[in-house]
Amino acid sequence: MAQSAEHNPKIGFLVHGPEDELRALIARRRGLAERCEIRHADGVVSMEDKPSHVMRNGKGTSMWAAIEAVRSGEAAAAVSCGNTGALMAVSMLRLRKLPGVNRPAIACLWPSRNPGGFNIMLDVGADIRAEAGDLLQYALMGASYARNGMGLARPRVGLLNVGTEEHKGRAELKAAHELISANTEAGNFDYTGFVEGSDIPSARVDVIVTDGFTGNVALKTGEGTATLIGELLTQAFKATPLSRIAALLAMTSLRRLNRRIDPRRVNGGVFLGLNGTVVKSHGSADATGVAAAIGLAFRLGRSGFSQRLAARVASAAPPSEDTAAGESDDDSGNHNGTGE
Amino acid sequence: MAQSAEHNPKIGFLVHGPEDELRALIARRRGLAERCEIRHADGVVSMEDKPSHVMRNGKGTSMWAAIEAVRSGEAAAAVSCGNTGALMAVSMLRLRKLPGVNRPAIACLWPSRNPGGFNIMLDVGADIRAEAGDLLQYALMGASYARNGMGLARPRVGLLNVGTEEHKGRAELKAAHELISANTEAGNFDYTGFVEGSDIPSARVDVIVTDGFTGNVALKTGEGTATLIGELLTQAFKATPLSRIAALLAMTSLRRLNRRIDPRRVNGGVFLGLNGTVVKSHGSADATGVAAAIGLAFRLGRSGFSQRLAARVASAAPPSEDTAAGESDDDSGNHNGTGE
Repeated sequence: MAQSAEHNPKIGFLVHGPEDELRALIARRRGLAERCEIRHADGVVSMEDKPSHVMRNGKGTSMWAAIEAVRSGEAAAAVSCGNTGALMAVSMLRLRKLPGVNRPAIACLWPSRNPGGFNIMLDVGADIRAEAGDLLQYALMGASYARNGMGLARPRVGLLNVGTEEHKGRAELKAAHELISANTEAGNFDYTGFVEGSDIPSARVDVIVTDGFTGNVALKTGEGTATLIGELLTQAFKATPLSRIAALLAMTSLRRLNRRIDPRRVNGGVFLGLNGTVVKSHGSADATGVAAAIGLAFRLGRSGFSQRLAARVASAAPPSEDTAAGESDDDSGNHNGTGE
Repeated sequence: MAQSAEHNPKIGFLVHGPEDELRALIARRRGLAERCEIRHADGVVSMEDKPSHVMRNGKGTSMWAAIEAVRSGEAAAAVSCGNTGALMAVSMLRLRKLPGVNRPAIACLWPSRNPGGFNIMLDVGADIRAEAGDLLQYALMGASYARNGMGLARPRVGLLNVGTEEHKGRAELKAAHELISANTEAGNFDYTGFVEGSDIPSARVDVIVTDGFTGNVALKTGEGTATLIGELLTQAFKATPLSRIAALLAMTSLRRLNRRIDPRRVNGGVFLGLNGTVVKSHGSADATGVAAAIGLAFRLGRSGFSQRLAARVASAAPPSEDTAAGESDDDSGNHNGTGE
């Protein structure tokens, strides 16, 4: 919080939780207290709590209060490091889905060869199912996120499959391929076509669309691979006296590399498709990680992302039609109301 | 071939392809010619050929001839570095599925924290669909492969899902969870339950079971992540003069690490569920990689893997029953004929 307050002079915080503890923590950083309004909340959602339990009994928790503040318009966005399932459940319950959105999605950032250093992938676990129409909505939402969160004028969207040939894959992927192709102008993105797992970090694409089951497996597989390589690398540097000296000499470069690929630092999963912006930071994130998530929430909140996203989703044809019906050449927030 | 001939004094080769070229290549290695019988074949399956085309027109190719040699019993196993889709199509056509197997699978090796250095994952792309009964067969086939190919007496099998809790995941995964639990004795394996993408390289499990769509995405995501990290590591070592010196000092250790995780070296995808053993080596494999694939094919061929696998699949209850009907406490090749 202190880091992001320094970087963004216009940022202000509503902080939800146990008042006394929070006041003491905030007082430690100069200049932070004036930017914070503390809202006392006794209850805490733990990492073990089931989403259904939190939906029924979560009213007095800080998580609930943070989402309520987005709902009432007091907060432009919510940031939480807590239980992902519970956060999505409370967000769905209180913020509700955007008109026209069937399944909300969680979008993550993935280290990539693109100049910005990251690609966007969605859904990575909000829902284990996705029909062709859902995948089209993910494409629209992901492209809007890339424009507003990463400043890409016309993002390139790819659809994850087991091969790049048009005849490959499941039936819903072929249908989604057609739908997404037909909506590139309504969504203001370029469509790369099918991409494979090896393309997720590539510079061919900015946004990777997939169902939440496949996306979640891919995300955790990527994290697991990076963690394994990190461990093996550490072992390699301890293997011989020469390699131990090498580790010392290369320390700065290796730390920089680590910052780029450490899954705990690739921070800020965003919930898309709700009436309001919610950013999920990793539970084990450090100050830099949380500052990244807050910075992202601030950019998205300031840009009116939630309204722009709503307009964009509404601008595309409903899944039953073939061509785009709406007209919207920028994410201006003018909701033309087609297709609802 | 020369490497594997040295390592395995009992190995012999049927080599299919253009006779003159092959004879010249084989003559370059001392002692190799006596171990090889060249079978002339004019035709070649290219990487671009469609599987359906090869099935109709592939009769004169070296790939076809290699599979025919397994079919006739002349060869104990086939090894190919060619087009995966075409190799699977020709293998299915000529070798046919094992009795009781609905969908054959491709099993790959994945660098892991286990003492052997690798875990097995299947299916990684033979079929994009898998029902609960198919996933049970993958568990049986993967466990049999781990016993015969990696020497694990009682392999631990995990089912890939988006969380480890029993209530998570798609309907077919919950059904497969019950089926696999009920068949651990018939299959002679331990069942770890649901595992996540981050567990694929873990020491909690030896065999990871999933459908061919998810498995293919996970495999390529893992490869893509490893390749990206490799590139970033190379950049990091070129970043400063100190880091360049460090790279020199650590070269041996880093090369060892590279051998362990380079996707081109994790070689030897095995086709499971056919009447005969077929090992697919990576198209870009070097001599060490091909030798690894040949060594694996030799071990599997010598152990009578194909017959053992058939017995194991037959020993489990058909998917419609709840408990194991067969009895077979080792992979002895005695096919008791239950469940067919």
